Amino acid sequence: MKNFIFQNPTKLIFGKGQISRLNELIPTDVNLMVTFGGGSVTKNGIYDQVIAALKGRKFIEFWGIEANPQVETLRKAINLGKSENINYLLAVGGGSVLDGTKLIAAGIAMDKDAWDIVLQGYAADQIPYASVLTVPATGSEMNRASVITREETQEKYGWMGTYPKFSILDPEVTYSLSEYQVACGLADAFTHVLEQYLTTPGQSRLMDRWAEGVLLSVKEISPKIKENPCDYDLMADYMLAATLALNDFIRMGVTEDWVTHQIGHELTALHGVTHGHSLAIVMPGTLRVLKEQKHDKLLQYGERIFGITEGNKQERVDKAIEKTEEFYRSLGLTTRLSEENIGEETIEIIRTRFNERSAAFGENGNVTGDVAKEILTSCL
Amino acid sequence: MKNFIFQNPTKLIFGKGQISRLNELIPTDVNLMVTFGGGSVTKNGIYDQVIAALKGRKFIEFWGIEANPQVETLRKAINLGKSENINYLLAVGGGSVLDGTKLIAAGIAMDKDAWDIVLQGYAADQIPYASVLTVPATGSEMNRASVITREETQEKYGWMGTYPKFSILDPEVTYSLSEYQVACGLADAFTHVLEQYLTTPGQSRLMDRWAEGVLLSVKEISPKIKENPCDYDLMADYMLAATLALNDFIRMGVTEDWVTHQIGHELTALHGVTHGHSLAIVMPGTLRVLKEQKHDKLLQYGERIFGITEGNKQERVDKAIEKTEEFYRSLGLTTRLSEENIGEETIEIIRTRFNERSAAFGENGNVTGDVAKEILTSCL
Repeated sequence: MKNFIFQNPTKLIFGKGQISRLNELIPTDVNLMVTFGGGSVTKNGIYDQVIAALKGRKFIEFWGIEANPQVETLRKAINLGKSENINYLLAVGGGSVLDGTKLIAAGIAMDKDAWDIVLQGYAADQIPYASVLTVPATGSEMNRASVITREETQEKYGWMGTYPKFSILDPEVTYSLSEYQVACGLADAFTHVLEQYLTTPGQSRLMDRWAEGVLLSVKEISPKIKENPCDYDLMADYMLAATLALNDFIRMGVTEDWVTHQIGHELTALHGVTHGHSLAIVMPGTLRVLKEQKHDKLLQYGERIFGITEGNKQERVDKAIEKTEEFYRSLGLTTRLSEENIGEETIEIIRTRFNERSAAFGENGNVTGDVAKEILTSCL
Repeated sequence: MKNFIFQNPTKLIFGKGQISRLNELIPTDVNLMVTFGGGSVTKNGIYDQVIAALKGRKFIEFWGIEANPQVETLRKAINLGKSENINYLLAVGGGSVLDGTKLIAAGIAMDKDAWDIVLQGYAADQIPYASVLTVPATGSEMNRASVITREETQEKYGWMGTYPKFSILDPEVTYSLSEYQVACGLADAFTHVLEQYLTTPGQSRLMDRWAEGVLLSVKEISPKIKENPCDYDLMADYMLAATLALNDFIRMGVTEDWVTHQIGHELTALHGVTHGHSLAIVMPGTLRVLKEQKHDKLLQYGERIFGITEGNKQERVDKAIEKTEEFYRSLGLTTRLSEENIGEETIEIIRTRFNERSAAFGENGNVTGDVAKEILTSCL
């Protein structure tokens, strides 16, 4: 096991009816701004619940944080927050609203352009923020990560801030999600685990088991959710799994990969592919190209997640990769670039971008632009 | 899944050589008292590491927190702390030193007798405290729980405080533990999981998987540790498993039991049985007596932990309970009261104590003194 430091102070408030606790959770003496996405919360009743919970409290609203939040939009929120002396943020939305709010929190606290904060990779300061989560997927409700897009240059990068003060997770908010949103959320959670698990073997028995525990849970609930998208216990399992897939709990003392995310971000930035969907396309390719390096972990994964015990080692590894792609397809997602009308031109752009950044991604730092091209080519 | 609130702010610093970070972790402007047990840390080099790490800093030492820490001892530490204006504590030791230090932290902060705090069940105030853990077992290094003994009346009760600010876990400190200490630590960790897992079925797929992940890890490493008690990776797995077995991570949205602990505390209070060992004796009895109520979970446990798939349901349940007792015995622990020269007289005392407290323990609140007697009788 590698040495590690772990600390995740976010308070999770999980369950039915918990949005009503908002007022007791936010300090009384703050200048609050509530941030939202495009407006779906006004249709599914979540906005009304938030407003009811905040009754008697003064706050301002900022609307319009888009999917794959754009720095251009967030700068407007930062300017508004500064002019209104905002010192506490509440994000009401999915991973994009949360990621965007993290940057707003940093932008308000600092005299630095928002994109420069992203490029620096971390924020030296941030005002406190919290969330009411509406889409289980990114884990942003209980982690430090944020991914921001710069529309004018079609760039999309991750950076690290502080943890949310609290996040309210009411599984009932998921009932109004589309089948595609749920599919992308499940793919996102599943892939987050693979990024932290399919790396170096033998580092921690327990982290392996916990990663496998999330994978098995997501695999088990996925077909059931398709049949019963308003089953409380199923959606509670989904919501908790998505949070625990990326809140540092399964990465103690182990190496991580994140190549699939780096490549997926490019597909989103260049073609607007939904994040979870981009991962469903790229992850099987990452495994196909890096299967020698990930050989032992793929064997363990194949056996423990898909029950693959027949055939020689190479056959079992190949089967595990096939089963992974099948899982993503079973969610209802495409897994090939050609299905999304993305071709070699895009692959070449990504290769060039990686090489220009001197990319060396993955647990062994060996995924350059050329390797990324190989991965994407295998996804055509 | 039940509604729940989760927040665990403890910072874990895990790995080789991490004790040297002490000085940077403790605020510079505090009046520090370092608390210790009986003195084993002076023989295994841990005391020297702590002193070296704190070089240049003023602090006082309090020695003599015994196994099953006694309120009589802790009152002395509280008086010393108050007279020296101590406002930060560092526990260097195992679960007992940590549990004792939690009460010292509360006693210093409050004008209330220490035993009254225990009887109240929680502390309204506590000065901050942190730890260097030397014995993986209780999880006290990352939870709010503390169990205190009142020697003069042979009583032992749990209460809840705040979380440690940080805990340093260096697996190398375990190399000097005796085989019996390690056996009790492994039994403690295993039982902590069972208390949170062998209850109501179907509440959370993911919490089930994570509980099973700790059980499988502990089961897998236990025989290996007997052979190689100074293998770093094995002891790191053990140390991490003991912490994650009781730090709230596997009890989100699920019901809990704790009958075995309640009964075990009595055996420790009355006969000085080491905590982990008392659990190895009582847990199989709890399962024998409550096997109808725990039927479905025992089936799942038997299959996923011990691979029990043969026989009818009743046979599989019985087999799972047998395998549990076998596991404790495989650690080198006895699992019967008669082996520890404890008989019916003690059982009667415990029955009376439970009835006097109007005990109603367990996930269904149905374990009275009479049920406790039945459990203990099955352990004779």
